[in-house]
Amino acid sequence: MSPSPVYEATCTAPVNIAVVKYWGKRDTSLILPTNSSLSVTLSQDHLRSLTSARCITSGGADARDRLWLNGEEEEIKQGGRTERCLSEMRKMRKEFEASNSSLPRIADFPIHIASENNFPTAAGLASSASGLSALIATLSTLYALTPENGVSVSDLSRIARQGSGSACRSMFGGYVAWEMGLKDDGSDSVAVEVAPVEHWPDLHALILVVSDKKKGTPSTAGMQRTVATSALLQHRIKEVVPARMQRITTAIQKRDFDAFAEETMADSNQFHAVCLDTFPPIFYMNDVSRAVIQLVTELNRASVEKGEGVKAAYTYDAGPNAVLYVQEKDVKQVLELVLRYFPQTTESFPDPFNLGAKPASDVPQGFNKAVIPEHEVGAVARIIHTKVGDGPRVLAKEQSLLNAEGMPKSLK
Amino acid sequence: MSPSPVYEATCTAPVNIAVVKYWGKRDTSLILPTNSSLSVTLSQDHLRSLTSARCITSGGADARDRLWLNGEEEEIKQGGRTERCLSEMRKMRKEFEASNSSLPRIADFPIHIASENNFPTAAGLASSASGLSALIATLSTLYALTPENGVSVSDLSRIARQGSGSACRSMFGGYVAWEMGLKDDGSDSVAVEVAPVEHWPDLHALILVVSDKKKGTPSTAGMQRTVATSALLQHRIKEVVPARMQRITTAIQKRDFDAFAEETMADSNQFHAVCLDTFPPIFYMNDVSRAVIQLVTELNRASVEKGEGVKAAYTYDAGPNAVLYVQEKDVKQVLELVLRYFPQTTESFPDPFNLGAKPASDVPQGFNKAVIPEHEVGAVARIIHTKVGDGPRVLAKEQSLLNAEGMPKSLK
Repeated sequence: MSPSPVYEATCTAPVNIAVVKYWGKRDTSLILPTNSSLSVTLSQDHLRSLTSARCITSGGADARDRLWLNGEEEEIKQGGRTERCLSEMRKMRKEFEASNSSLPRIADFPIHIASENNFPTAAGLASSASGLSALIATLSTLYALTPENGVSVSDLSRIARQGSGSACRSMFGGYVAWEMGLKDDGSDSVAVEVAPVEHWPDLHALILVVSDKKKGTPSTAGMQRTVATSALLQHRIKEVVPARMQRITTAIQKRDFDAFAEETMADSNQFHAVCLDTFPPIFYMNDVSRAVIQLVTELNRASVEKGEGVKAAYTYDAGPNAVLYVQEKDVKQVLELVLRYFPQTTESFPDPFNLGAKPASDVPQGFNKAVIPEHEVGAVARIIHTKVGDGPRVLAKEQSLLNAEGMPKSLK
Repeated sequence: MSPSPVYEATCTAPVNIAVVKYWGKRDTSLILPTNSSLSVTLSQDHLRSLTSARCITSGGADARDRLWLNGEEEEIKQGGRTERCLSEMRKMRKEFEASNSSLPRIADFPIHIASENNFPTAAGLASSASGLSALIATLSTLYALTPENGVSVSDLSRIARQGSGSACRSMFGGYVAWEMGLKDDGSDSVAVEVAPVEHWPDLHALILVVSDKKKGTPSTAGMQRTVATSALLQHRIKEVVPARMQRITTAIQKRDFDAFAEETMADSNQFHAVCLDTFPPIFYMNDVSRAVIQLVTELNRASVEKGEGVKAAYTYDAGPNAVLYVQEKDVKQVLELVLRYFPQTTESFPDPFNLGAKPASDVPQGFNKAVIPEHEVGAVARIIHTKVGDGPRVLAKEQSLLNAEGMPKSLK
C-alpha cells in the first residue's frame, strides 16, 4: 500500500507599516474601510509570521480544524476571522475542484494550522496583518489557488482583508495600496501593488519601540469611536486622503524621498489628530513619541537648510512606537543621531546590518542640540532595523511547523 | 495758585479661559480671527492684572509715554500693541474733546502706565489678555470713554483686540463671545456678553498647573503655521465652530452643564487636533495633561452611568495646563479626586474657598482606579481654584501703582 499523499504548505508573510493610514470602517463585518491606505512591506528577513497548514486526511470522526499560535492552541471561533478566512478559501477550492476533475478532493478535510511570529509581543508590533496574510498565503499554496491557476494576489488580498483589514496589504511586497473600493459587497476593496521592492529597494525602516505603561485603546474599538464622534474625520476621508494617495503614489514612482516623507509625516500627524478629535479622545503617542518627532523635525530642518533634503520620515500607528523611513545613504547618520538621544544596549539594538553605528559624538551642522533632552537607556526600549521587502514566501516542507502526524513540532 | 488737576485712573481686569478656542488669524495686523470664540471670565479676586495710567501734565519737553510691567520699565515700541492701543484711545478721546468744548484737553499729554499681575509667570497663565484688557479699561476711565458717554464695552473690546486678540473677551464678565466679524477693517470683530456672571454664578474653575521642561511653540507663530499647513483647520472654521458657538450659547443660557461640558471638551480636543495636524506638528499637552483628561473622562463616565450627569469639563490652551470647569455642588468631590491622583502641598494648593478638601480616600462608585497611576507631588505643580467672575473694575485712587509724581510706587 502506497502512503496516502500529504497535503501541506508552509509560508511566511511580512509586516507592513502604513504611510497613509487606515482608520475607520464603513462596514465592520466585511472590514471595508472609509478611506484607501498605502503601506511599505518590511523585510521577512527580520520580521515575519510563519504558518503551516495541513489537511488531516486520516483523522477519523473527531478530526476538526485546529489552530496553534506560537505553540498554544487557540479556539477557532465560529464567525471569527480565522474561520472566515478558512471558509472563504475552502469555497474557492471547491469551485476549483468542481471546474477540474483531475484535482484531488481536499477542500472538505479538516485543517491543522500552526503559526509563529518571530517578533516578541513586547515589540509592540501588531501581528494580525502578517499573521492573517501568512494564513491566506499558506492556504492558497495548499489549495493551489495561485496566479498560475487564475487566482490573483489581489483576489487573495480580498480574503485576507476579511481576516484583518491591513493584512490585505501584506499580500504584496514593496509599496502597496489598499483601494477602499465602492461596492457594498467589498469585491473591489483589495490590495494592489504600487511598486515592487525592486523599484525602490533602498528604503530602510527603524522601528523605535517605545514602552508605555498604559494600554492604549484597541484600534478596532478606537476607529469606530472616531467614525462616530470626530467632526474632522469626514473631511480627512473625503478631501485629504484621495489627493494624498495620488501624491504619494507619484512620489514612490519617482523615488522622490522628500515628497514621500512629507506625505508620510503629514498623514501620521493627521491620523493622530483625528484620534484626538474623537470623544473621549484617543492618545497613542506619549512624551517619548513626541520627542522622536521633534528630533526628526530638527534633523530635517537643519538638513533642508543645507540643501541636503529630508533625512527621515516618522510614522506612528495605534501605539507609541515610531517607525522611521530612511534612505540607505542616510541610515547610518540617522541611526547614530537616534542612538545619541535614545541610548541602546547591544541587546536592545543588535545592529543587524553591521553598520557599526555608535551614538553620534556630535550633531549635524546647524542642528539645535537643545531641541530635546538626551534620554536615559530604556526610554526607547529597543530599535529594530529593517528595510522594504518582498511579499509572502513559500517555504520548503522541512520548515513546516507541523510534524508527520500533523501536530505542532513544538508546543508551549 | 490751585494745584493742577490730576488725570489718573486705576483698573483691574480679569483672565478669561476659552471654551471655544481662538486659533488662527485672517488678518495678523488687525488681529482678526478665522473663527468666533467663547470664554468664561475668571474672578479678579484670585487672578487679575492691575493697571494705573496718568497724564503727565507738567513733565516738560522730555516727558513721553512710559510703561512699567511688574516694576520694570518696558519700551513702548512704535507699532507695538501698547502703542497701538494708546493711539486708538487717544484718537477716540480727541474726537470726544472735539465734540464737547467743556472737556479738558488731555489727549495729547504723555501717559505713564504701570501694570502688575498678581499671578506668577510660573503659573503658566498668559497675561496678555488680562493685561491688555486692564490697559484699555484704565484708559477708558482716564479718558471718560465709557458707556455713559456713548462708548460701549464692545467698542472698547475692538481696541483691546488689536492689543491682544483674546484681550477683547476680558472686557466683559461672565460668559463672553468674540464674534469674528466679516468686515476687512475689523469694525465688527468685537466681544459681546453672552450672559453675565449673575446668570450662572456657580461655575468654578480649577487650574492644574503642569510643568513642562520644553518651551512650547508661541501661540502667535503656532496659529499661523496651522493656518498655513493644516488641512483640517478650514473644516473646523467653516463647519464645526459656527454650530458649536450656537450650541454652547444655548447651553449657557439654559445653565445646562452637561451640554456646556461636552462642547468645551470637544473643542479643546479639536483645537489640539488641528495643532497636531500642523506641519511640523505642534504639541501643547504632555503625558500629565493626558492623564488629567483620562481622570476626568473616567469620572464623568462613572457619574453618567449612575445618572448623576457630567462632573467636570477639561480645557487646554496653548500649554500643558488643564483648566477644569466644575459646578459648585461638585467642586469638593472633583478637587478631592484630583488631590488623590495629583497630590499637592498646602503651598501649592492653599484652598482659597476653605473647602477643607483632602485627597479622596476612595474613588467614586463605579470609577476604575486603574485608569491612571497616582502621580508624585510636583507632577501638577500647583492648583489655582477660582470661579466665574465679573468684568474690569475701577479702583480707588489710593490703589494706584503710581505716586504723586506719576512714577511707579515700587520698582524692581
